[in-house]
Amino acid sequence: MKLWSQYFVPTLKESPADAEIASHKLLIRAGLVRKLGGGLYTYLPLGLRVMQKLTQLCREELERAGAIELWMPHVHPVELWQQGPRWAAAREIMFRADSAGDGKHGPREPEFVLGPTHEEIVTPLVKAEITSYRDLPKNFFQIATKFRNEIRPRFGLMRAREFVMMDAYSFDVDDDRAIKSYQAMKAAYEAFFRRIGVQAIAVEADTGVMGGSFSHEFMVPAEVGDDDVIYNEASGYAANREKARSALVPADLSDAAPVGAVEEFATPGVVTIAALEAAPYSVPADRQFKTLVYVGDGKPFVVILRGSDELEEAKLGALGFGLFRPAAPEEIEPVLGAKPGSLGAVKGTIKNPTALAGVFADHAIRLIGNGTTGANKDGFHLRNVNVTRDLAITRFGDFRRVRAGEPDVKSGQPLQVRRGIEVGHIFKLGTKYSEKSGAVYTDDQKQSHLMVMGSYGIGISRTLQAIIEQSHDADGIVWPWNSAPFHVLICVLDPQLAEAVDLARKLAAAAEKAGAEVLVDDRAERPGVKFKDADLVGIPLRLTIGGKGLKEGVVELKWRHQKDVAKVPLAEAEAKLAAAVAEAQAKANA
Amino acid sequence: MKLWSQYFVPTLKESPADAEIASHKLLIRAGLVRKLGGGLYTYLPLGLRVMQKLTQLCREELERAGAIELWMPHVHPVELWQQGPRWAAAREIMFRADSAGDGKHGPREPEFVLGPTHEEIVTPLVKAEITSYRDLPKNFFQIATKFRNEIRPRFGLMRAREFVMMDAYSFDVDDDRAIKSYQAMKAAYEAFFRRIGVQAIAVEADTGVMGGSFSHEFMVPAEVGDDDVIYNEASGYAANREKARSALVPADLSDAAPVGAVEEFATPGVVTIAALEAAPYSVPADRQFKTLVYVGDGKPFVVILRGSDELEEAKLGALGFGLFRPAAPEEIEPVLGAKPGSLGAVKGTIKNPTALAGVFADHAIRLIGNGTTGANKDGFHLRNVNVTRDLAITRFGDFRRVRAGEPDVKSGQPLQVRRGIEVGHIFKLGTKYSEKSGAVYTDDQKQSHLMVMGSYGIGISRTLQAIIEQSHDADGIVWPWNSAPFHVLICVLDPQLAEAVDLARKLAAAAEKAGAEVLVDDRAERPGVKFKDADLVGIPLRLTIGGKGLKEGVVELKWRHQKDVAKVPLAEAEAKLAAAVAEAQAKANA
Repeated sequence: MKLWSQYFVPTLKESPADAEIASHKLLIRAGLVRKLGGGLYTYLPLGLRVMQKLTQLCREELERAGAIELWMPHVHPVELWQQGPRWAAAREIMFRADSAGDGKHGPREPEFVLGPTHEEIVTPLVKAEITSYRDLPKNFFQIATKFRNEIRPRFGLMRAREFVMMDAYSFDVDDDRAIKSYQAMKAAYEAFFRRIGVQAIAVEADTGVMGGSFSHEFMVPAEVGDDDVIYNEASGYAANREKARSALVPADLSDAAPVGAVEEFATPGVVTIAALEAAPYSVPADRQFKTLVYVGDGKPFVVILRGSDELEEAKLGALGFGLFRPAAPEEIEPVLGAKPGSLGAVKGTIKNPTALAGVFADHAIRLIGNGTTGANKDGFHLRNVNVTRDLAITRFGDFRRVRAGEPDVKSGQPLQVRRGIEVGHIFKLGTKYSEKSGAVYTDDQKQSHLMVMGSYGIGISRTLQAIIEQSHDADGIVWPWNSAPFHVLICVLDPQLAEAVDLARKLAAAAEKAGAEVLVDDRAERPGVKFKDADLVGIPLRLTIGGKGLKEGVVELKWRHQKDVAKVPLAEAEAKLAAAVAEAQAKANA
Repeated sequence: MKLWSQYFVPTLKESPADAEIASHKLLIRAGLVRKLGGGLYTYLPLGLRVMQKLTQLCREELERAGAIELWMPHVHPVELWQQGPRWAAAREIMFRADSAGDGKHGPREPEFVLGPTHEEIVTPLVKAEITSYRDLPKNFFQIATKFRNEIRPRFGLMRAREFVMMDAYSFDVDDDRAIKSYQAMKAAYEAFFRRIGVQAIAVEADTGVMGGSFSHEFMVPAEVGDDDVIYNEASGYAANREKARSALVPADLSDAAPVGAVEEFATPGVVTIAALEAAPYSVPADRQFKTLVYVGDGKPFVVILRGSDELEEAKLGALGFGLFRPAAPEEIEPVLGAKPGSLGAVKGTIKNPTALAGVFADHAIRLIGNGTTGANKDGFHLRNVNVTRDLAITRFGDFRRVRAGEPDVKSGQPLQVRRGIEVGHIFKLGTKYSEKSGAVYTDDQKQSHLMVMGSYGIGISRTLQAIIEQSHDADGIVWPWNSAPFHVLICVLDPQLAEAVDLARKLAAAAEKAGAEVLVDDRAERPGVKFKDADLVGIPLRLTIGGKGLKEGVVELKWRHQKDVAKVPLAEAEAKLAAAVAEAQAKANA
């Protein structure tokens, strides 16, 4: 039990000017954290308590899944990163650590860096210590501070320079076993998020810079999220933008058979899909071919979509280019022969086809029969264009952006789209890192093989804030039971009454015996201030001891997430409180 | 319960080449840590478990003492340090944090630094959040990673670049209350070290660069320690070198009254105490005055000791110079008139007395009557020198180095001297930091006052190693119960026998029920390997299940710190094991 008067819960009436979103405001106002500098926060006692609970529950679920906890340094010798596969890209968001001494400014190349994640550290450790199939599988995790040199830290703990992450690394003898490790971790994540009382959706995700073969993100739905989740609740389908697919409604293909030869027509000044949709041309957008030009590893390539579709740029990652970007207008004309607005990929119309790295078409253009596209001649388009007969396509792929309402591939029911906060990520890494580090094992035939890795992260400090974002109202935070800094708040309205304070201690003891953590508000403040603070801080169960209630022989019991207040006779207060605690515990751990 | 075969305890037969001391060797060999780089260590599962226990016990004792836990960033905006009182000195041992990006090498002055301790961070927080006497006292602590840019990291976790520290900061309304906070923390430290099973002596210490009015160090006696502890066990007196005093045996003062006027005599070639002790001069060292010259803040000053005493240089700190150092010979002659070997401070013999910042004499020279000193004339000394009559002394002080065997000031009994490892430090800081930060409070009369601070540290990772240094034998670590990574090790000698494994599980469950943490060695290794590893890893209680024992109907129970092995009939094994656990627990927490 803690007494508020001797504890440290500095609540604020006003939000700091730099707090843009509700959870950031509440973090500060409820006295959970204080800003030290951009993206740097001190955890005050309540914030630290939540962090310690999330840490402990995360640890329990990972240990249950067979993962082994260790703890790696924050400061890393830079060689380990330079020897790894992603130094060139990663260093841009990393801190280096050099002498702060006067006149000893660092050399151009750092000696030490601060770890944003630990693939480069754990793989050499495993290589040195584990050599036999008998010692596999192994899955190591740690819960530790990570560092990112964010140029624009924002949203409190959401994008910070220092943050707490659980990171885990699994090592298996082969792909099948690696998938089992991956699935065990996915289940552990689900159990963790369930226990801390946060709704997090596992969505199919892109592997991005981490490489690897597949991946899931765990997203907490929230308006302020940084990414879209495309999902159908009933079917369980969920993916992020980069991965989302849909089952398209078939277009009317009655005219899919060519109605005649490709025919050029003049379209002076028409350079947009919309202009071609309008009279006098009246070509529906979903009957137009949209022709985009990108540059991949220095060579231009073409992407064709339906006019009614948008490109999901990240999906071009599947083409295998190291780097790609939209082509500049002056890069386009020499290759295709026209300016944007009159581009197309009809065979024979491309000025310099050998300069192209390829023509990549979204699957959905197969729904177009006798469509219209640019003639690669400024001010002219072509009609009666048919995909197979007329277009010079290198490869089909999924490049379009999925929209809300499109049919789910699993159920055919409409997909929904919402914003989400990414709180966790799991990757099947494959052998990318073990190859770089030479992390091999010998099998029972004395044969050497690369270990197959997975890597896993949960943003613990980010999750703390995501809980608040998902669970608050106009008055403050509404903590889920298992992540609350305390479970029970006992408000003593007249702390100068010895009788009231004695009762508070007795009830606190009863709640503690039932397994709850108790904060007693014994401050010399007005009841209004105490109730406002109680709502702001958001402890799940409030018990109020008032001078008037005492005379009447009652105390008040109120759940933070409910409106009603229950008057409880003094004689029943201990039992009722203990029962409420037991009930909440059972529900939270169900 | 953990199974060794599925856990990660990589023991080694050989010590790493860079491990010089026993505890460092055992840290590595017992699989507690692995070196990542100089002064950077990964905590493997066993090492992390010990760390987590020390952390938790430290937290419990500090909370019991009323301290409030929070958690401050590792990365600090440099301004906070520049505004503090010790940036110029502290930066030399600090890391800066800059972009690791290619081509973005840091500016000369850092933007961020990594915290070695947090006075500069906590004081502004308190200034911003605490304004009234009603909110005081407050004592904030954290248990967190600290960073020091050690040029020569060594001895494993003893002098590392990254280490875990508990640091606490108390804020009080006045000096008396600050002393109460200090005493409460001293008691909490004592309780903590007792619980983790380490003998740590609280010694009076110098406040050094931290400033402040008084201070204690907590030292673990060990040959490899970095500092001396001067103590008498019976009286409880203990101090470090800088602070140690003794009650000197009175010299024979029968000739203390001047026997005649000061008399010069030739001492050609005599420039040492020893030479003057020898024939033909035969002046005992404790009848000689030793005259040393130092330079303090640019001005020379003289220190006089008995010829038989050594200067304890750190004690000159009490003179109040910002910086001091021994004078070079060429700085001495112009002021005193002679070279070292013929120096003295007899009135009228100093060539340029106004050039001196003072003549400071150790108290012990009062024990000399009719002594001998240099004449400030090369090749000559003076005899019949008496302190009060003849020496030009500015001030007396305690400057001599205490020796083993000198009488304790408390009891008169002989002092002992041993090496110790500093594992904790407490400082009464006063108002040095609150003044710099403007950390003031208003009293009940609306008057403003500076808060009076204390600061406190325990090297948690260093303590981990100090326990090993204090508690090991030729075969390995001997963990105290409360800091052991596991309490009970169950060795299954024939893990292929299902019967043996079943019994191990049953006994593990019994030990866990009694409150112990259990590791089961189920590896397919020879008994010799298992016993060697058991001794190396040092888990307090070992229970052995052997195929032969099983046939005979017994298991073996052995304490790591004892030689004897007890054979326990199977029927009694659960009860005996539970009783042993209960006994060890009771003893450790007594």
